[in-house]
Amino acid sequence: MEKTKKFILPESDIPHQWYNVVAEMINKPQPYLNPGTKEPIKAEDFYPLFSEELSRQELNQTDVWIDIPEEVREQYKIYRSTPLVRAYGLEKALDTPAHIYFKNESVSPVGSHKLNTALPQAYFNKMEGITNLTTETGAGQWGTALAFACKLFDLELAVYMVKISYEQKPYRRSLMQTWGAQVIPSPSMSTKSGRKIITENPQYQGSLGTAISEAIELATQTPNCKYALGSVLNHVSLHQTVIGLEAEKQMEMAGEYPDIIIGCFGGGSNFSGISFPFLRHKIKGEKNTRFIAAEPSSCPKLTRGKFRYDFGDQAGFTPLIPMYTLGSKFTPPNIHAGGLRYHGAGSIVSQLLKDDLIEAVNVDQLDSFEAGVLFAQTEGIIPAPESNHAIAATIKEALKAKEEGIAKTILFNLSGHGLVDMASYDQFLSGNLVNYSLSEETIAQSRDNE
Amino acid sequence: MEKTKKFILPESDIPHQWYNVVAEMINKPQPYLNPGTKEPIKAEDFYPLFSEELSRQELNQTDVWIDIPEEVREQYKIYRSTPLVRAYGLEKALDTPAHIYFKNESVSPVGSHKLNTALPQAYFNKMEGITNLTTETGAGQWGTALAFACKLFDLELAVYMVKISYEQKPYRRSLMQTWGAQVIPSPSMSTKSGRKIITENPQYQGSLGTAISEAIELATQTPNCKYALGSVLNHVSLHQTVIGLEAEKQMEMAGEYPDIIIGCFGGGSNFSGISFPFLRHKIKGEKNTRFIAAEPSSCPKLTRGKFRYDFGDQAGFTPLIPMYTLGSKFTPPNIHAGGLRYHGAGSIVSQLLKDDLIEAVNVDQLDSFEAGVLFAQTEGIIPAPESNHAIAATIKEALKAKEEGIAKTILFNLSGHGLVDMASYDQFLSGNLVNYSLSEETIAQSRDNE
Repeated sequence: MEKTKKFILPESDIPHQWYNVVAEMINKPQPYLNPGTKEPIKAEDFYPLFSEELSRQELNQTDVWIDIPEEVREQYKIYRSTPLVRAYGLEKALDTPAHIYFKNESVSPVGSHKLNTALPQAYFNKMEGITNLTTETGAGQWGTALAFACKLFDLELAVYMVKISYEQKPYRRSLMQTWGAQVIPSPSMSTKSGRKIITENPQYQGSLGTAISEAIELATQTPNCKYALGSVLNHVSLHQTVIGLEAEKQMEMAGEYPDIIIGCFGGGSNFSGISFPFLRHKIKGEKNTRFIAAEPSSCPKLTRGKFRYDFGDQAGFTPLIPMYTLGSKFTPPNIHAGGLRYHGAGSIVSQLLKDDLIEAVNVDQLDSFEAGVLFAQTEGIIPAPESNHAIAATIKEALKAKEEGIAKTILFNLSGHGLVDMASYDQFLSGNLVNYSLSEETIAQSRDNE
Repeated sequence: MEKTKKFILPESDIPHQWYNVVAEMINKPQPYLNPGTKEPIKAEDFYPLFSEELSRQELNQTDVWIDIPEEVREQYKIYRSTPLVRAYGLEKALDTPAHIYFKNESVSPVGSHKLNTALPQAYFNKMEGITNLTTETGAGQWGTALAFACKLFDLELAVYMVKISYEQKPYRRSLMQTWGAQVIPSPSMSTKSGRKIITENPQYQGSLGTAISEAIELATQTPNCKYALGSVLNHVSLHQTVIGLEAEKQMEMAGEYPDIIIGCFGGGSNFSGISFPFLRHKIKGEKNTRFIAAEPSSCPKLTRGKFRYDFGDQAGFTPLIPMYTLGSKFTPPNIHAGGLRYHGAGSIVSQLLKDDLIEAVNVDQLDSFEAGVLFAQTEGIIPAPESNHAIAATIKEALKAKEEGIAKTILFNLSGHGLVDMASYDQFLSGNLVNYSLSEETIAQSRDNE
């Protein structure tokens, strides 16, 4: 009998519902708070910013399953189901008894898992009569995903792209423009907050915090316009559960159940997506799977942050969120895994970590790229710099399994490919990439400053 | 019953044999000739350059089916079978009754169909004790594919990359380096022919012709080293038939048979790959499918070239090949579809065109990009500039079907994605891309100069 490398579900098995883990958690996350009144936030409080349906999903703690609209499911078919792949090549290179599987989200046309939430976000806004969306993007993964989703559902999109990325990553900008989005380098003269910054410091290269402020300002001051976010929030993680729901069926096809599940960690959405559907069996006491979030050493909110209420953004526009945080003013070093450069973790993941239902590790930049190159050379796919963190953590566990002589089953999420990030591989291969170490003082300064 | 968008074969249905159309052609291609003696070339004549098995495949006119080694088939599983996709989004945008399908070869980790032949070429060389390969690459699609294949089969690879591409396309260079290949800008000081050119003209930006000369020189002067080519030759087209063989089964799953099959055309390998397995039913009189090769207007060997014996390379190192050609000294304008900038067509395709079994059309650069953007906006995938020619020809046929009110079934090959070619989309979207028209005099000058 010949070996199967890729386990593929028929389109009819693309999930019809997202899995809402909060409804089954024993300790629910603490509520979001209004920073002024300290009162818990209600769904209506989000309506000025987000579509009403997304606002309700954000605070839904009762429904375990939430229907995926047929129109969204039809568009999921462009790239879903995504393959579950047995990494025979990597296993051989590591000479490990471990069985390594990865869920390949890089096959999405935008190159990452971000489209899983961009599609429903565009759809729900469209259904409520919204005509325009705004968002921000750093490295550009989220912006490209939302650009394509808006094109499919016939919405106008304005993306504020951090100015230095706009200039240094012209390929991601071109992608967004090809899908019809308007891309504005931030800070810009199109908003009050942008103009203020440019006036004060004309040389300012931009930041995610500034871009968020501009996107929110434009959304709240434009008729029929809302704002969209690509990570951290509960409704985003909810949409990403299609990853784990598919993976569960595919692991069944492979005749195995994962002992360890690994995802890289920025705000939490791809980690949540692969983990939550498996985690439900741990919550119910049916399985004892380990869940490992792999974050960069240079932005270690889970491994070195503090659990407390904090803002989701630098400017303090968001509600107070109960989270592991390095402090909302924390500016991470300029690593290539731009998607992991975020100061905090979403409220669900934070609660799960607090309750020891999941674990976290941190990975140095050089180790992450070394892992990524080995993966590329054995499995072919050039991973996104973000995904390299999950691969590095996987390799570590696979080598531990080898030491222990145990045939562990490891599943990780390949959140995206790195074809538009080759400049970072170039730097690594030519020996020009560095690690960043953060002193306890540096971290404590912003982490403990409530 | 829900609509199926992607038709996917299980791995067990990846072909076990390639289809050798020559064996079933009624008019065989005329033989390759030794340019000195004018005698037909024998397989042994190729041995100094190519692996012996590949040399035999090149001249095999008798075996209809040629076994795919299990080791190659195992590696095909990294990305094969590739999806056959119904382009509902494009159909809707064109408001056409035509059913449009595409075979998505862009899912290969190197981003194009080139890996289909890179894998067996690396494998057969390895089996014969070869340790090193050399090749040339222009835009870089072929070089990246061979780099990954050599990594998998543990061969050293030296790629001569046209100097201007080396500098202008750093991403493709980084890809090859990530997979462990040595990439040398051509002309280089590492060969006699390179040194001669640099000495005569230190500013020379390189050409495919020069890079081929350097690669061949290095191969013939290094022990255990052979040369590899990514298009034009018969054994390359043979390997690419996995595309059409899979597509045939997938069209069956879709319950349709194509009326028209379309591929873009450079040297002929992707067009051959999608076409030949279907063409056998036309040769046998069972089907009357139309086969359309879509070439760039700026390099129109099929639509404006001459059928005669010509060299495969600019320097005249190859045997004489019976082909449609613009003359081996023809230098096409610098269009973005670098993979289509070749002066001639392979001998099989040339014979088929001469016998009216296939057709050819040419497409302007601007029309090709307009088609590519519409495809990206409706189907998500950013096509390679080369593939845009196939899409433009498909759209033309779909609109004709609409005029005629006939629900034609059209199948085209999406040979690759354009994620590493975004600079060309950028130029198109900003209005800086141009068409090139070639006067009859310009073409005649090199075409008729035997």
